[in-house]
Amino acid sequence: MTYKMSISYEGSRYKGWQRLKTSRDTIQEKIEFVLSRIFECSIEIHGSGRTDAGVHAYNQIASFKAERVIECEWLKKEMNRYLPEDIVILSVENVHESFHARFNAKKKVYTYQVWTKETPPVFERHFVYDIQSKPLDQDLMKRASKRLVGTHDFKGFSTDKTKKSTIRTIESIEFLEEDRVLKIIVTGNGFLYNMVRIIVGTLLEVGYGIREAETITEVLNSGVRSQAGETAPAKGLFLTEVIY
Amino acid sequence: MTYKMSISYEGSRYKGWQRLKTSRDTIQEKIEFVLSRIFECSIEIHGSGRTDAGVHAYNQIASFKAERVIECEWLKKEMNRYLPEDIVILSVENVHESFHARFNAKKKVYTYQVWTKETPPVFERHFVYDIQSKPLDQDLMKRASKRLVGTHDFKGFSTDKTKKSTIRTIESIEFLEEDRVLKIIVTGNGFLYNMVRIIVGTLLEVGYGIREAETITEVLNSGVRSQAGETAPAKGLFLTEVIY
Repeated sequence: MTYKMSISYEGSRYKGWQRLKTSRDTIQEKIEFVLSRIFECSIEIHGSGRTDAGVHAYNQIASFKAERVIECEWLKKEMNRYLPEDIVILSVENVHESFHARFNAKKKVYTYQVWTKETPPVFERHFVYDIQSKPLDQDLMKRASKRLVGTHDFKGFSTDKTKKSTIRTIESIEFLEEDRVLKIIVTGNGFLYNMVRIIVGTLLEVGYGIREAETITEVLNSGVRSQAGETAPAKGLFLTEVIY
Repeated sequence: MTYKMSISYEGSRYKGWQRLKTSRDTIQEKIEFVLSRIFECSIEIHGSGRTDAGVHAYNQIASFKAERVIECEWLKKEMNRYLPEDIVILSVENVHESFHARFNAKKKVYTYQVWTKETPPVFERHFVYDIQSKPLDQDLMKRASKRLVGTHDFKGFSTDKTKKSTIRTIESIEFLEEDRVLKIIVTGNGFLYNMVRIIVGTLLEVGYGIREAETITEVLNSGVRSQAGETAPAKGLFLTEVIY
């Protein structure tokens, strides 16, 4: 039987999604631990992709296979009973045996939250990047972001050390402001390690007026990481949606 | 010079607003510590009232007197620089020397947040009471709440051991639902120890269908705490506004 889960988590306490040999503090490990107890055998899950240490998810998708058939609604409740309170299973469903959360993912949506209020965040402080009321020209950022949309080699916007292709397609970068929280919403077919955070860090430098928009095209052409902006902090980033 | 401050805090880590001899983990202590360093003398502040351990504030008001004149905007920034990140000063202003945050407070507004979604809260978990999808009849609660509005002896809705008057006036109890978070907003001229939490706990029992609305009038008449409902958890409660 193949199971598909939708998961929400606060990443603050974790070393990221991906299971590690050196730490038990990963989201994958916590979920596999509980599933293996429920199914009474070792269960390996496949996330739609990794999220870095400190990054959150409104809606991460993972799949796994198990011999036993367990009713999905009961399974969801049982998992939520035993998972730590910063990881919640939103839904469980049975899917076709060919389904794989990573291989079948067509698009992903990430949302980065920038705090633009003068007073620091209290209740939101683990979920936003507080730029400490530095003046931000959002129009400049919006115009600069258009240079990133499309199919490009994003090597310069990544700390990936893989030798695989670094070509990805960004479908859109949208800007939304709600109650002085600026949301930068990036939709694409796949993302390299740290890619959204480096894109946001670079766009913020454009918004502060300390970087020219043209440099974005230069980084795309050169593929040199050090020419891009700083990596924006993990706590502002959410994996918002995975589209199949 | 008399100063008035507006303060936002997450109460989770604290033993409440009020300074204690037995612990440094109170909000008053943290603010007085920083103010005393800035003013280079011992400063005592007066909050509009206490909040219990674990209770939050969107907007608590406190006042204090100091010989030195410090520019308010600078003072606010300096305080926010040195305060822990779960306490934020929203504003500082100079007021008439007769102003006292507690004695002058005319009304207070408290908001209690109840999580009515089936899936547990993740990002909101420190700020809501999750009733774990127990069916809740909000109409019953609304009708029952009308029995509390007005001037009554709220002794039965308190764990106050004071011998002072336990008569208070509740001006309104409003119900607001946003994205399946039920907000119960209580406005009154003053509140006894645990009063809002016991009111909410009692109204929830009415909503679950395990308590008759008439018992509310009985508790008001008898003044016996054990006849009222359970005290709802601190984490769902916010001091929202103090009106002068």
